[in-house]
Amino acid sequence: MIILNAITSPGDVRALRQEDLAALAAELREEIIGVTAENGGHLASSLGVVELTIALLREFEPPADSIVWDVGHQAYAWKLLTGRRERFATLRQPGGLAGFPRRDESPCDAFGAGHSSTSISAALGFAKARDIQREGGYAVAVIGDGSMSAGMAYEALNHAGAAKTNLIVVLNDNEMFISKHVGAMSKYLNRLRTASAYTRGKSDVKAFLRGLPLVGETMSNAVRKAKNTLKYFLLPGMLFEEMGFTYIGPIDGHDIAALTDVFAQAKKQPGPVLVHAVTRKGMGYEPAMRDPDVFHGVGPFDRETGEPRKKNGSPTYSEVFGETLCRLGQDDQSIVAVTAAMGNGTGLDQFGLMYPRRFFDVGIAEQHAVTFAAGLALAGLKPVVSMYSTFYQRAYDQVLHDVCLQNAQVVFAVDRAGLVGEDGPTHHGVFDIALFRAIPNLTIMAPKDENELRHMLRAAFTLPNPAALRYPRGKGRGDKQEDDSMPLPVGKAELMRQGADVVLIGFGPLVYRCMEAADELARRGVDAGVLNLRFLNPTDQEAVLREARRTGRVVTVEDHMLAGGVGSAVLEILADAGLSAVRVKRLGYGDYVTHGPIDALLAENGLDTAGITRAALDICAQAPA
Amino acid sequence: MIILNAITSPGDVRALRQEDLAALAAELREEIIGVTAENGGHLASSLGVVELTIALLREFEPPADSIVWDVGHQAYAWKLLTGRRERFATLRQPGGLAGFPRRDESPCDAFGAGHSSTSISAALGFAKARDIQREGGYAVAVIGDGSMSAGMAYEALNHAGAAKTNLIVVLNDNEMFISKHVGAMSKYLNRLRTASAYTRGKSDVKAFLRGLPLVGETMSNAVRKAKNTLKYFLLPGMLFEEMGFTYIGPIDGHDIAALTDVFAQAKKQPGPVLVHAVTRKGMGYEPAMRDPDVFHGVGPFDRETGEPRKKNGSPTYSEVFGETLCRLGQDDQSIVAVTAAMGNGTGLDQFGLMYPRRFFDVGIAEQHAVTFAAGLALAGLKPVVSMYSTFYQRAYDQVLHDVCLQNAQVVFAVDRAGLVGEDGPTHHGVFDIALFRAIPNLTIMAPKDENELRHMLRAAFTLPNPAALRYPRGKGRGDKQEDDSMPLPVGKAELMRQGADVVLIGFGPLVYRCMEAADELARRGVDAGVLNLRFLNPTDQEAVLREARRTGRVVTVEDHMLAGGVGSAVLEILADAGLSAVRVKRLGYGDYVTHGPIDALLAENGLDTAGITRAALDICAQAPA
Repeated sequence: MIILNAITSPGDVRALRQEDLAALAAELREEIIGVTAENGGHLASSLGVVELTIALLREFEPPADSIVWDVGHQAYAWKLLTGRRERFATLRQPGGLAGFPRRDESPCDAFGAGHSSTSISAALGFAKARDIQREGGYAVAVIGDGSMSAGMAYEALNHAGAAKTNLIVVLNDNEMFISKHVGAMSKYLNRLRTASAYTRGKSDVKAFLRGLPLVGETMSNAVRKAKNTLKYFLLPGMLFEEMGFTYIGPIDGHDIAALTDVFAQAKKQPGPVLVHAVTRKGMGYEPAMRDPDVFHGVGPFDRETGEPRKKNGSPTYSEVFGETLCRLGQDDQSIVAVTAAMGNGTGLDQFGLMYPRRFFDVGIAEQHAVTFAAGLALAGLKPVVSMYSTFYQRAYDQVLHDVCLQNAQVVFAVDRAGLVGEDGPTHHGVFDIALFRAIPNLTIMAPKDENELRHMLRAAFTLPNPAALRYPRGKGRGDKQEDDSMPLPVGKAELMRQGADVVLIGFGPLVYRCMEAADELARRGVDAGVLNLRFLNPTDQEAVLREARRTGRVVTVEDHMLAGGVGSAVLEILADAGLSAVRVKRLGYGDYVTHGPIDALLAENGLDTAGITRAALDICAQAPA
Repeated sequence: MIILNAITSPGDVRALRQEDLAALAAELREEIIGVTAENGGHLASSLGVVELTIALLREFEPPADSIVWDVGHQAYAWKLLTGRRERFATLRQPGGLAGFPRRDESPCDAFGAGHSSTSISAALGFAKARDIQREGGYAVAVIGDGSMSAGMAYEALNHAGAAKTNLIVVLNDNEMFISKHVGAMSKYLNRLRTASAYTRGKSDVKAFLRGLPLVGETMSNAVRKAKNTLKYFLLPGMLFEEMGFTYIGPIDGHDIAALTDVFAQAKKQPGPVLVHAVTRKGMGYEPAMRDPDVFHGVGPFDRETGEPRKKNGSPTYSEVFGETLCRLGQDDQSIVAVTAAMGNGTGLDQFGLMYPRRFFDVGIAEQHAVTFAAGLALAGLKPVVSMYSTFYQRAYDQVLHDVCLQNAQVVFAVDRAGLVGEDGPTHHGVFDIALFRAIPNLTIMAPKDENELRHMLRAAFTLPNPAALRYPRGKGRGDKQEDDSMPLPVGKAELMRQGADVVLIGFGPLVYRCMEAADELARRGVDAGVLNLRFLNPTDQEAVLREARRTGRVVTVEDHMLAGGVGSAVLEILADAGLSAVRVKRLGYGDYVTHGPIDALLAENGLDTAGITRAALDICAQAPA
């Protein structure tokens, strides 16, 4: 790491000799692969933009120039070259560097990210602020082709294309989405890429035009028009040109010299410019090039072989969901599945293979996914939309209006609900309950384990209203699979343990922590009950009131923000019933939760067995209400 | 109304003689103008699509064919021709027809709407469901050019363009947004429209090609390529063609015969088709043609003159907001304003006129608006985003991640918070508190009147964190303007009246209803206090606890859903403080609220003076907690 070791700021990159850049790229890859093998992370896309990152730092000067990375999971080389080399081994570790750009980490991180397709909007904000404040500096958005399927990117292009301000959008076209090619834009980019004919065509057409017999003053109007039209031949990025951008590309995104040339050219071009760079995901690491999908986001792996370090244990909730849906889909041909570039992550891939006509991956397009599902439902099908909790934040209006207000019977699989761990605050799914609970006719379900997930999914399809089924990231308990036909009465809580002193009300798998806490409390002489709430809207008011009356003390336990969550629902039930002589302690999150291992984060927030025990002891120590 | 009177179902429209259609169009306009003059409504866009609606019903057969109207405020002629003629005079009246398509009104309304840009997604859902179920029928989306600026429309085009299913998108290009031309797409459509050269060019180019010396077997590759390229000349809708659509247009959207021809053609075309019809807003009613902006959504007006019936009284909250912002913007050059096609509605127009460089209307693009504002803020400006409460539902993720998580100091003006009246459930702003309250560092403010709005807006710009300022649709109290320099301590509630028996906690202008209720309660021997809560995050816990302790009885009053709203916040405060011996009655909405006059809807939901009084009496009649 001779070269990388000497780099402590962006200026050092600019100072390097051209002939050292290839070696720098190799060292960056070495470092990124090494740390990601240890810590896990977004490897494939980070490897793909090593040269692009170097070229950006050769031509632009952050923080004076604002470089906005879209999503940001590809910004590892950027972190290494902007003063974070020494801390890079702490990537995604507790207290360490975040896996995404963060303004509080470096002034070079102009804009924090996590979710896709925000970069053009943010960069346009920087550009316009520069204009208004009469300052200098370039505003650059670096956005992947996958992110271009989200409507937000289009909204920003639409504004920027008409805004007459200097803005550079670097389209990092790595020839694949998180999952696969989806949508017309993806096909369009493919045409641009593969049509080397375009580039060859340029000279051909010029020759053709020169050879035309009518060139010159005598050229007819028709020919003048035709010639004018031929510009589309000369301008391969027509779609972007039509949107008001100057298009430059496609260029090899692994050729640093070519990239810096093009960036220099883009800086001189007035107005919005789109630079189309073609890169390869996983570039330079054989296993990641072979299987970029697996190495998009990956846990710790063996560096030599690329094999994951962790043994496969019990299936994840996503896998259980996917398998169950496949079985249900076999019996019921009207079940269809929709996702937004999360087919692999949500366990839907198998359903897609078994029932390709009934599976829709619409790309990164959560809003469309939900309303499309509403259409499917109102036409008589039974759609399940499967996305991560955090991405439903992108489609709230559609869930509310297009599905629920019309009572379209859509089932929302809310994967990655609760803390997700290393991806941190932009990916924790801790807002969905507050959002969904305000919707009158949306039944919210949270299974305590895999078997309950199976039963709930089955039940969700039988409801006369839409349902949201939330379950966490990661593995379940590995319990033996129960009989599928076990009925699960919707709206009924499960009293897992009766207690006289306090009742612990849990939602989702934390119920098992409540059970452990109840054991611990018993050892300390406190008789704690545990209620597995299971459902909100309808909530089992009878069970809540009965246990609250029995004990006079309630501890609510949820993997979610406190404001408006399960605890609030319990308080509402008690207040509405006029049952005020009950003490309630709510456990959950009062603030944004950082990144780190889920168990550690739960403990920090008092949601581990010890924390729940503590809360129960506290409340029992107080005078009765 | 000889012709219209005879139409009771879509079949009757198809049965009409071609020569009667113009008269039918005239009768439809007559009826629409008459009822809208009485009831108010969306006049200009409804007048613009009269011929388009007739043509749709001549070529398509709802409900077998699914016609999805985008936004739906233009569907008045549709309602008149699909069996709702007799009820049409009840449009937007209590218990009457809704101002938007509603599935519960007619089987011909395939998809309910209200917010823009959902139609292509929904229609694609219908199309795919038809394919899967091996049924027949056409799926048609009718979408305005304004709605094409929203990312959601692009997401759907992107999916549809690659989906290889029969789908017809009718682009109703009425040459203007709700406000004005915004964005690159708008400019592009303008080029398509105005370039009659395109249409003329067709034959010119054909002639040119025929005249080429090299046509035939001997044609060189270069010429073959050039000829292939010339298709872009022959296909004016290149941008749509590149997205995978067959483009037909532009055609005169007021020529019924031409429209039916084109629809017939579109039906035969496999795959996704985009029909580009150019219409004029307000067509056939002089005042609306002259000022389509005013007649977009309009209250009752004089039919002869087009003048509004209602006298101008005290200014609206939106106007007070707009004026205040203009004054603040004069002193502070770093204040900038962003809206999403709501400049007029939110009172920002004046700011835009005074400070055009610091005003941004990004079109219908709420997601982009918010993240763009985040960029502006992080670059050192003080942006205010001004949108209706209901449209923040479109940008929740952006509010959460791009603004709040990064603590970008953006001020969100949340206009039309609470019930909006005649526009009904899709436009009521009754979810924002639940959504925003879960965000840890977003201060929520609700002024009780115009003066408090002024002070709060001023205070919002001084906060070290983002703020959301929510205020209702319509006029304020008309109070004399207070000194602007009056300080308003953020996080402090205002005890407007001290009482011993019960405290009424209000948020926003309903506080004055609480004052009236307190008067009424006094007459009945109940000593009620009134607390104007003013702020959430931080909430004035001290004041809430003090008054709760004083009285032991709390009634919370909010123009918002009950689940997760202000009442829940109060319950959380009481529970967290261990103050359980307090009875709390929460007033707000437990279900979707229909359309109608705001006062009537408030009364129905117990939020008028009588309802608040009743709730307080009830709670006082119960035994102390």
